[in-house]
Amino acid sequence: MIKVIIAGFKGRMGTAAVNMVFEDDTLALVAVLDPFAQETSFKGVPIFTDKADLVGISADVWIDFTQPSVAYEHTKFAIENGFRPVVGTTGFSETQIAELLALSENKQLGGLIAPNFAIGAVLLMEFAQKAAKFFPDVEIIELHHDKKKDAPSGTAIKTAELISKVRPAKRQGVSDETEMISGARGADFEGMRLHSVRLPGLVAHQEVIFGANGEGLTLRHDSYDRISFMSGVNLGVKKVMTLDKLVYGLEHLL
Amino acid sequence: MIKVIIAGFKGRMGTAAVNMVFEDDTLALVAVLDPFAQETSFKGVPIFTDKADLVGISADVWIDFTQPSVAYEHTKFAIENGFRPVVGTTGFSETQIAELLALSENKQLGGLIAPNFAIGAVLLMEFAQKAAKFFPDVEIIELHHDKKKDAPSGTAIKTAELISKVRPAKRQGVSDETEMISGARGADFEGMRLHSVRLPGLVAHQEVIFGANGEGLTLRHDSYDRISFMSGVNLGVKKVMTLDKLVYGLEHLL
Amino acid sequence: MIKVIIAGFKGRMGTAAVNMVFEDDTLALVAVLDPFAQETSFKGVPIFTDKADLVGISADVWIDFTQPSVAYEHTKFAIENGFRPVVGTTGFSETQIAELLALSENKQLGGLIAPNFAIGAVLLMEFAQKAAKFFPDVEIIELHHDKKKDAPSGTAIKTAELISKVRPAKRQGVSDETEMISGARGADFEGMRLHSVRLPGLVAHQEVIFGANGEGLTLRHDSYDRISFMSGVNLGVKKVMTLDKLVYGLEHLL
Amino acid sequence: MIKVIIAGFKGRMGTAAVNMVFEDDTLALVAVLDPFAQETSFKGVPIFTDKADLVGISADVWIDFTQPSVAYEHTKFAIENGFRPVVGTTGFSETQIAELLALSENKQLGGLIAPNFAIGAVLLMEFAQKAAKFFPDVEIIELHHDKKKDAPSGTAIKTAELISKVRPAKRQGVSDETEMISGARGADFEGMRLHSVRLPGLVAHQEVIFGANGEGLTLRHDSYDRISFMSGVNLGVKKVMTLDKLVYGLEHLL
Repeated sequence: MIKVIIAGFKGRMGTAAVNMVFEDDTLALVAVLDPFAQETSFKGVPIFTDKADLVGISADVWIDFTQPSVAYEHTKFAIENGFRPVVGTTGFSETQIAELLALSENKQLGGLIAPNFAIGAVLLMEFAQKAAKFFPDVEIIELHHDKKKDAPSGTAIKTAELISKVRPAKRQGVSDETEMISGARGADFEGMRLHSVRLPGLVAHQEVIFGANGEGLTLRHDSYDRISFMSGVNLGVKKVMTLDKLVYGLEHLL
Repeated sequence: MIKVIIAGFKGRMGTAAVNMVFEDDTLALVAVLDPFAQETSFKGVPIFTDKADLVGISADVWIDFTQPSVAYEHTKFAIENGFRPVVGTTGFSETQIAELLALSENKQLGGLIAPNFAIGAVLLMEFAQKAAKFFPDVEIIELHHDKKKDAPSGTAIKTAELISKVRPAKRQGVSDETEMISGARGADFEGMRLHSVRLPGLVAHQEVIFGANGEGLTLRHDSYDRISFMSGVNLGVKKVMTLDKLVYGLEHLL
Repeated sequence: MIKVIIAGFKGRMGTAAVNMVFEDDTLALVAVLDPFAQETSFKGVPIFTDKADLVGISADVWIDFTQPSVAYEHTKFAIENGFRPVVGTTGFSETQIAELLALSENKQLGGLIAPNFAIGAVLLMEFAQKAAKFFPDVEIIELHHDKKKDAPSGTAIKTAELISKVRPAKRQGVSDETEMISGARGADFEGMRLHSVRLPGLVAHQEVIFGANGEGLTLRHDSYDRISFMSGVNLGVKKVMTLDKLVYGLEHLL
Repeated sequence: MIKVIIAGFKGRMGTAAVNMVFEDDTLALVAVLDPFAQETSFKGVPIFTDKADLVGISADVWIDFTQPSVAYEHTKFAIENGFRPVVGTTGFSETQIAELLALSENKQLGGLIAPNFAIGAVLLMEFAQKAAKFFPDVEIIELHHDKKKDAPSGTAIKTAELISKVRPAKRQGVSDETEMISGARGADFEGMRLHSVRLPGLVAHQEVIFGANGEGLTLRHDSYDRISFMSGVNLGVKKVMTLDKLVYGLEHLL
């Protein structure tokens, strides 16, 4: 049994994490933390309002879905007290990450900081990067609900960045192509073209399309619900038990 | 048996038309026309170099895959001589079409002028137009080989035009959306967004994607080979036998 | 303003219908009916527990999302009292439908009984039937969540039935094909092949794939949420105002 | 410059290989072999009818697209004479492969025997195997032209085999699911379901669909033309120059 503490257990992600732990027989929830909680227990699990009271408690993993400002202090505290951190945030600075890494190495304690817990999305990016070594002709289509404000999506740009590490810049399409209507050929990222579709009904979807002489390879990820992140958190909780330092990015555990 | 003449029988489309007629037991090829032909017969069928020599021949349908300049004179000649024209061209002026239509009505003779003989593409456009009545949120993705020079494709623009006849202009996406990289949201056609993908290996493909609360409808046409046009020609040859005037556009026969 | 009564307003579909009516400025909810309700009003709308008390109320349309047994009596009552019924059920017998139709004709009152209110799904079936006239080679893939018990789905079978009305039975695939593993070629419906995919994460999706020489046409419907049915209910409410008898099936209003 | 010999240069694959070598400035075709050739040279390259005459010729790589029976002797001959073999065949026995491997190790000579030279298909299988570690719920849809006799395709079965090496057998779908029409749920391979679509117009396509809570991952390969194999042959020719023994399977070079 892996004994787990969850910080930020009342938020959307924290709530999902609580359910994930309860549904896995190999995990036990031993404490939850929320500075503003009025109650003292939640489904039989003691609620703490001050992390200092958690010193000395018997636990293996510290899942953290709090705000970045708090999360940094939490992660440091967790490592210092022997709790392996599993933290979902994009908000840490490189300096903070370096410091936490050094601390974990010093303690020889595993841990995970992940900006993206969706295993499917992380696999897609890994596969796209590998395929681009052999198929340098590639375009990305991402499709989201029509309330999304930025285009292309962060994941599409991240995917293009990863691809560009293995693919020399190359202008996709014929050299004298003409846009009869401006924007038809999409956003230009080192010659790759990125296309953003916005429609009601859609959630979050991405296709990476590779073309070569006589063949095509398409990788698609569909995200329908935030619950999908919990597979990645569950994987993280189990993998950090086998590590002796912090890693940044779920891809290093796949 | 429908007796067929083919003008322009040596070109790429003409050659395919010859094969199509030979493979259909209900059609008989009675003559072919080519002003530059040296031979006098082709697979047992007489070759004519001057259309004047075809006056009085017993034939029902005149398939024409010549250049627009010649095709107009051919079509006029065919109607005058009682051969129902089946003509593939985008090059006739509105005046020319009106004149040919009047001539066919006068003769009570069926006929077809079609800029596009791909039944699948024509159906796609028809379905897209109908769906847009109920789903005004729509984007178009067209995907072609990477030697194509214009973007969006003519078919994508035609599809958008057809949709815009039944869909009031509507800006797709949230009002304050931002393109982090210019062009991400594609070409803007009355608020519809059109995206053009260019990759080696692809031939000619188009997706029309409709989104609404909780659902999506996607229509896709894949064109792998010009042979696909022959189903439309075959259909045209048979349908003109039942008409008493010329029609413009394969969609009117579907 | 179209004045609406909703029967079965507490169920999943009824609740969605209430929200739909509130969100449309051209509709007014004037009464709701539930035999077991304890309250007397719901968001300012009077609750009735006995339909007899609705006689004489000023209303145009009766939306019914109750059980089939009750729904039949409700529909009859609605027509008799001048309320145009919009009923979502698959449970009426042909005799019942015929009787209700005759009653509506007698009253010259519009109405709609629809086994499926998803406009996208209904359009997909209509388009599939039309395409099958020209492309008799067709297979259907339906994809659902992995808790679904029956395969193929009802919609897939309905689609195949509609196609079979315009497509002579035709065995798809080569005559001497061999299944190396039984079931590979799917379910056989008059020679059409139906394939059922069951995976977690999926909701309800269907693809109808047509193939012909050198081309393909694919129609896909994705259903993510029951809210999608409400577009069809809304359409039905407005269309029945213009009818003078009952129709069976949303397709007749598209 | 890598100097290349091609055996079986007149076959479909051999012809494509000749073109591939001519189009790559870093490769030089120094000889071709065909026992039945009448001519003595082909586009300036000497034709040999007896492999014995190739002993001592200066060449780096031996591309072989002959029949399995001949190919084995050829491969052995190539290694013995210092030509790195690049052989496309599925026909060698395990004993033969072991023997050729030992011979290559003895000579410290690189080489490649590949049953499949389509890089896209090989990447698809590799990615599918990796994804299955995290997403055990998976189904495969393969789509081919309607002249194909076997179902599922060899590639689909190979993909399922690779997946089953990392995925414990698991019955896909709910335990009490019912096929209303036999075969709807496809072929059963250790609980994975394989679906085979056969339609005119299609060439060779495969989708591997993974589902998990709230997300989906789809990998698709489209093969339109045999020319796609040549990217893999080209890669093989270059990679064998850096190896010191034979490898079996293109995946080991990706």
